[in-house]
Amino acid sequence: MSIELRKHIEKITPLSDKEFDYILSHFTTRKLKKHQFLVQEGNSVPNDFFVVKGLLKASFTNTEGKEHILQFAMEDWWICDYQAYFNQTNATLNVDCLEDVEVLSLSLSNREKICADLHKIEHFFRRKSNMGYVALQQRILSFMNSDAKGRYEQLLKQYPSLFQRVPKTLIASYLGVSRETLSRLTT
Amino acid sequence: MSIELRKHIEKITPLSDKEFDYILSHFTTRKLKKHQFLVQEGNSVPNDFFVVKGLLKASFTNTEGKEHILQFAMEDWWICDYQAYFNQTNATLNVDCLEDVEVLSLSLSNREKICADLHKIEHFFRRKSNMGYVALQQRILSFMNSDAKGRYEQLLKQYPSLFQRVPKTLIASYLGVSRETLSRLTT
Repeated sequence: MSIELRKHIEKITPLSDKEFDYILSHFTTRKLKKHQFLVQEGNSVPNDFFVVKGLLKASFTNTEGKEHILQFAMEDWWICDYQAYFNQTNATLNVDCLEDVEVLSLSLSNREKICADLHKIEHFFRRKSNMGYVALQQRILSFMNSDAKGRYEQLLKQYPSLFQRVPKTLIASYLGVSRETLSRLTT
Repeated sequence: MSIELRKHIEKITPLSDKEFDYILSHFTTRKLKKHQFLVQEGNSVPNDFFVVKGLLKASFTNTEGKEHILQFAMEDWWICDYQAYFNQTNATLNVDCLEDVEVLSLSLSNREKICADLHKIEHFFRRKSNMGYVALQQRILSFMNSDAKGRYEQLLKQYPSLFQRVPKTLIASYLGVSRETLSRLTT
């Protein structure tokens, strides 16, 4: 399952076998079943996760029990409660598996270590973070400027494969609309 | 005006005089008057901006002429149309000055050059980008979960000094509420 990670990093920076083996040695493989949790609200968040196989979501549940989905992740994506991970505070999000999942997990100390030891991997993570930042700014603009239909169409265009795999109820939660509103949009 | 940039970088990583001089040599000083634009919709976006003095906003104007404020920036912050800057596409945002402004501008090619030449500065930009990513995730959650009052209180708590300097109409646009709604919240 390590070839996926290598391909993923090499989209940004080429690696020698030795460099990749060094990087990989700082990751740990984990397999989880559908419905299991990788991150649970209130717990510490030692690891970030690269998705090798499967589908997950990161979500916030408010005091009334309503779930807001912040992020989905499937193959080749990363997922975590990043506020908790980077600041080493307790999770305010849950990350759970929508399918059986295989991930490679990376602790913050190992992340900092490989970034310090290998300039190339620091470069990789900087570029990934820049891309993520831009994507989040676009999502904020879509909340400010688009109605539900616009947000739905943007998501469909960006991530068509998500729609094959994610239940409509969860798509609605990600878009911040009711299941009924989404039904009207999709029929 | 370079001491501000040095202090800013050294919050994350210490620099020798030589290293800082090298970094600074890739920035250009610019001074602008209130109401001038640093980035204009439709134009190319060669530079990112570190704010030495003054206050700016980055905003999106939709087809009906309504302005949505994506970001404010004051001393010690960075501001740009990041989608356009990182992808070298034309701006979809405007960045304009709410006060007289002094900035240090950094082209994308100079950013990549100093990051490649000096591991420390790549580290600095990775860490800054991680922090920015987390802040944007929090803002998305506040759009999904908070009403106008909650978003207002969160902004007031995070950036009390903004409120001294930014007109209420612009705060309302940042929060995605009407000027009238904001007036009710602030009285």
